[in-house]
Amino acid sequence: MQLGIVGLGRMGGNISRRLMRNGHHTVVYDRSEQAVQALVPDGAQGAESLADLVAKLDRPRAVWVMLPAGAPTEDTINELADLLDPDDVIIDGGNTFYKDDARRAKSLLAKQLHYVDVGTSGGVWGLDRGYCMMIGAETATFERLEPLFETLAPGVGTIPRTKGRDAEHTRAEKGYIHAGPAGAGHFVKMIHNGIEYGMMQAFAEGFDILKTKNSVQLPEEQRYDLNVGDIAEVWRRGSVVSSWLLDLTADALVSDPDLNGYSGSVSDSGEGRWTIDAAVEQAVPVPVLASSLFARFRSRQEATYGDKMLSAMRFGFGGHVEVKK
Amino acid sequence: MQLGIVGLGRMGGNISRRLMRNGHHTVVYDRSEQAVQALVPDGAQGAESLADLVAKLDRPRAVWVMLPAGAPTEDTINELADLLDPDDVIIDGGNTFYKDDARRAKSLLAKQLHYVDVGTSGGVWGLDRGYCMMIGAETATFERLEPLFETLAPGVGTIPRTKGRDAEHTRAEKGYIHAGPAGAGHFVKMIHNGIEYGMMQAFAEGFDILKTKNSVQLPEEQRYDLNVGDIAEVWRRGSVVSSWLLDLTADALVSDPDLNGYSGSVSDSGEGRWTIDAAVEQAVPVPVLASSLFARFRSRQEATYGDKMLSAMRFGFGGHVEVKK
Amino acid sequence: MQLGIVGLGRMGGNISRRLMRNGHHTVVYDRSEQAVQALVPDGAQGAESLADLVAKLDRPRAVWVMLPAGAPTEDTINELADLLDPDDVIIDGGNTFYKDDARRAKSLLAKQLHYVDVGTSGGVWGLDRGYCMMIGAETATFERLEPLFETLAPGVGTIPRTKGRDAEHTRAEKGYIHAGPAGAGHFVKMIHNGIEYGMMQAFAEGFDILKTKNSVQLPEEQRYDLNVGDIAEVWRRGSVVSSWLLDLTADALVSDPDLNGYSGSVSDSGEGRWTIDAAVEQAVPVPVLASSLFARFRSRQEATYGDKMLSAMRFGFGGHVEVKK
Amino acid sequence: MQLGIVGLGRMGGNISRRLMRNGHHTVVYDRSEQAVQALVPDGAQGAESLADLVAKLDRPRAVWVMLPAGAPTEDTINELADLLDPDDVIIDGGNTFYKDDARRAKSLLAKQLHYVDVGTSGGVWGLDRGYCMMIGAETATFERLEPLFETLAPGVGTIPRTKGRDAEHTRAEKGYIHAGPAGAGHFVKMIHNGIEYGMMQAFAEGFDILKTKNSVQLPEEQRYDLNVGDIAEVWRRGSVVSSWLLDLTADALVSDPDLNGYSGSVSDSGEGRWTIDAAVEQAVPVPVLASSLFARFRSRQEATYGDKMLSAMRFGFGGHVEVKK
Repeated sequence: MQLGIVGLGRMGGNISRRLMRNGHHTVVYDRSEQAVQALVPDGAQGAESLADLVAKLDRPRAVWVMLPAGAPTEDTINELADLLDPDDVIIDGGNTFYKDDARRAKSLLAKQLHYVDVGTSGGVWGLDRGYCMMIGAETATFERLEPLFETLAPGVGTIPRTKGRDAEHTRAEKGYIHAGPAGAGHFVKMIHNGIEYGMMQAFAEGFDILKTKNSVQLPEEQRYDLNVGDIAEVWRRGSVVSSWLLDLTADALVSDPDLNGYSGSVSDSGEGRWTIDAAVEQAVPVPVLASSLFARFRSRQEATYGDKMLSAMRFGFGGHVEVKK
Repeated sequence: MQLGIVGLGRMGGNISRRLMRNGHHTVVYDRSEQAVQALVPDGAQGAESLADLVAKLDRPRAVWVMLPAGAPTEDTINELADLLDPDDVIIDGGNTFYKDDARRAKSLLAKQLHYVDVGTSGGVWGLDRGYCMMIGAETATFERLEPLFETLAPGVGTIPRTKGRDAEHTRAEKGYIHAGPAGAGHFVKMIHNGIEYGMMQAFAEGFDILKTKNSVQLPEEQRYDLNVGDIAEVWRRGSVVSSWLLDLTADALVSDPDLNGYSGSVSDSGEGRWTIDAAVEQAVPVPVLASSLFARFRSRQEATYGDKMLSAMRFGFGGHVEVKK
Repeated sequence: MQLGIVGLGRMGGNISRRLMRNGHHTVVYDRSEQAVQALVPDGAQGAESLADLVAKLDRPRAVWVMLPAGAPTEDTINELADLLDPDDVIIDGGNTFYKDDARRAKSLLAKQLHYVDVGTSGGVWGLDRGYCMMIGAETATFERLEPLFETLAPGVGTIPRTKGRDAEHTRAEKGYIHAGPAGAGHFVKMIHNGIEYGMMQAFAEGFDILKTKNSVQLPEEQRYDLNVGDIAEVWRRGSVVSSWLLDLTADALVSDPDLNGYSGSVSDSGEGRWTIDAAVEQAVPVPVLASSLFARFRSRQEATYGDKMLSAMRFGFGGHVEVKK
Repeated sequence: MQLGIVGLGRMGGNISRRLMRNGHHTVVYDRSEQAVQALVPDGAQGAESLADLVAKLDRPRAVWVMLPAGAPTEDTINELADLLDPDDVIIDGGNTFYKDDARRAKSLLAKQLHYVDVGTSGGVWGLDRGYCMMIGAETATFERLEPLFETLAPGVGTIPRTKGRDAEHTRAEKGYIHAGPAGAGHFVKMIHNGIEYGMMQAFAEGFDILKTKNSVQLPEEQRYDLNVGDIAEVWRRGSVVSSWLLDLTADALVSDPDLNGYSGSVSDSGEGRWTIDAAVEQAVPVPVLASSLFARFRSRQEATYGDKMLSAMRFGFGGHVEVKK
């Protein structure tokens, strides 16, 4: 099948490669000509502009936009909307806010264009492992593009089958789902990231206790000399917390058990924030997901204004003067 | 009435003064002779040692220990236990862990000594406003000492009376209660402090949002120029959040709206921690009280080990390199 | 001064009364003719329709809309916008989302109409105590209406003055502030409510531990018989947690210490939710404010889907079957 | 190697079986004779009493106590201490509080007995998958018993090796570690469970948002029809949240996507609580781990006293009457 790809960063480039390796054909475009040329040896057809990309695709076209969420994606989609013809499809593979997907789908439909949002997990590992994809689209559009999704997905692989699943392998087992209408793909991906934040923070807090238990600030008789790398490693073997995130933690701890190589100034992306907004909108209590996000906010600051206010009140009622150690 | 006082810091000294001003008699002792002498002009009788203090009191004696919780209090009580006679009373006015009170009361009873724990709130303001006291004791012992408590308490004052309270003023309305047996006084005081942490953190977070809304890091069209001092002030007038803590906040913000004079490295005392332990022991969900304590722990650190682990995982799955700004 | 008031519920009615009692003149309208008539004996002039109200006011007019946030307020403002003349003012005294204020102000300005948002705290108590008001408006519009705000506000009253405030009494000390442009009033009020949620939850959790400490489910030697009403009462006297919310708690506990008269199914309003959204937008960590909101969400449910999922996982890895007690 | 096992529930029985299958020899005892007899066909030697078990073991003996934490374990260890001889070892494989381990080890050492604490994860799956073990012991004692641990552990298996580990397989890679002195094993296991609570709650909250997004209580245009079973399944394929807990979730959702078969009244065990106590003791902020525990406490109650207090305050300041829906 043929696919246009706009945006050839790590993700866009690897999507092209994975499709080309498996018999599909891609026409690729990026503002950086170098990025375009890098894919040509693998068989991709380069384009010099969005218009050129559109011209090189057969109708009905499908164009995958793989750009940073927000203005870069929005502007490109608007430009494409003017270039494309009825029945063509625009796919947003980025991290777009699900309500923006719904808005766009509605507005493109007025031009008889179709919109698909693909939430992907797997990041830098996707070229080899495949991409886990959650897709929002009209059913007909989804089915038209399904050969692409099937190729990009990890496939059934060697993972033990879920108990109770014994009929033919479903899409979910192959690594992609049709989550619902436009927006539903990014909604499910957003929640995935919210959960990811929570799991990461659970590990972070637990290992913080373990590490602190070694601290010379504890009275000697309370102190251990725990090997955090070995603890992560042993938990990979049959424990309840075994997970890919634990595997990555074990990787990191082998060479740097004190994690001195990491700043601890932790970024957050839109999905983590939108997850909380969605929970608030739907009145779902999410203390863990929210705490995880707040820990990241806090990690990027020295003393907050709120902390200083605590100091000020303590001075007010108790005369306590608090000095930064 | 006569009272021995051991430990003449701010609290112990003012307790002596407030009692002396109101017709009681105190015998006072402190390791610092200067602290002892400072109270003599107000009429207190100085003692040179614990033994001297005990000798100068009439039986049955009452000795108020006003020392830091832990070893200083524990050691003094043990020493007093050897000096006192049956029916004498030891009062712990410090911030002792309530389970230690119960243990001590039991052990002193074997020597026919009585133990009273007094949780006090009011801090540096107590000399003038009076001390709000929560008292754990056997009933007979409590009643024997009640004239002291009545004097130390704020009294009925000018506070509007609680709806539904129309009989004679109760102890609670005068500012002291007999909470229960030994330990109950400090238990109630502990919870008081737990709530205090939660209220302080609620103000801290709210004002943090207000202050951040002025930040140049926000896009200009989203930014306000809020006057946090005036906001605290106006809330003192008829709003739902009016409170003594808000009064103190308003005080602090008048002269230092940016709170630059405060470190934001916030201490915590035993009570805040024990409150969480008690909640865990009793299976009570206390997300706000716990979060308040954790915010203080966090305020005293730069990057936590946990934060670094988040950075490490993010590098692992996404290749993200996080730099401290 | 003259003011039109639309919406004569508890708030709107009392605003009219408080203004009339102090020499202002009101023209009032409500869908319920009865509500209109109820205010006439106090001197208010009744109107039969929005158009009638507008007709009865002198230019430049000021109309205070005191209706539920959302459609009722929005529709009324739109209707008024068509009836009013250049330089007239519309005041929204409800609980509108601050971003809606900014949008409206901009759109009304195109018609040379002015928009003012007033966040008020004080609820059912405002008629007597006065309303604490946070106001968003252009400066000129704010100043034009200031006589009304000064009358509605609590005034300086008997509250001890904040340390460091010694010049002439400011607006904040009289109980109202000009917070900033349109939206700023509701923004500050929103944060007020966020803090209010946090303070309430702090008390709720603390008293929950106190009450549970009496529970027969605890081993007898750990159990107390705490009098929660007396505890609330004694804390009103000189303790750090003294506050209006504590006064209200003390009121409730006098007659119903077990709180059997209350469902515990706790509502939340927009402000609590928007506070979290604002914190997330501004990257401010607000664990206490968020936990307080989530506790309310949780209070309205029996078992959540999330809880059931925990049971399901526990069954999966440990064979645990969990039965509702 | 020879091992005595006391307590033949699911865990104790399977430990015996796994050892017998791999060439070790077990002498087993349980209060239930039936439990003892059930293991004889597999080659275990039954004992009729603790004394009999001790008598049937060669010196220096090793006895694994696999009983519920608390009194059952404590009493059995005390009884064994009287029966055993110098240089014998007692192993506690249960979920004991790590400070109790340290206390016991010290007290047994006075009798020249050795104490080993083994925290195990893997639950009902351990017979086949092996047990992931975290072990606290003196080094010599640990090494003496190592053949047993090596057999019980999962072994290297087929799990991809951690990056940077390329020398001979370590103990951690075989599935067991010597964490430190007595108590360290259970300490590490305790933190494991704390993390487990956090991860479970992260999934629970995320799926709660997904499920609620299907709710008829949402306006129709906001509603999706998400297939939660397929979502869990697709995330097993290459996503960042892939984990054993997700596998179990996928299992549960295949047959019961509404989770109607689960009560949602979620138990907690000592480890979850002790994790919070340890964090508080060590001043580590653990909002996620604490929130996870509190969610379980909350899940077992209808309306809390705290919730009712919120209703009471809301009635107090706003006249709000809250009815349980």
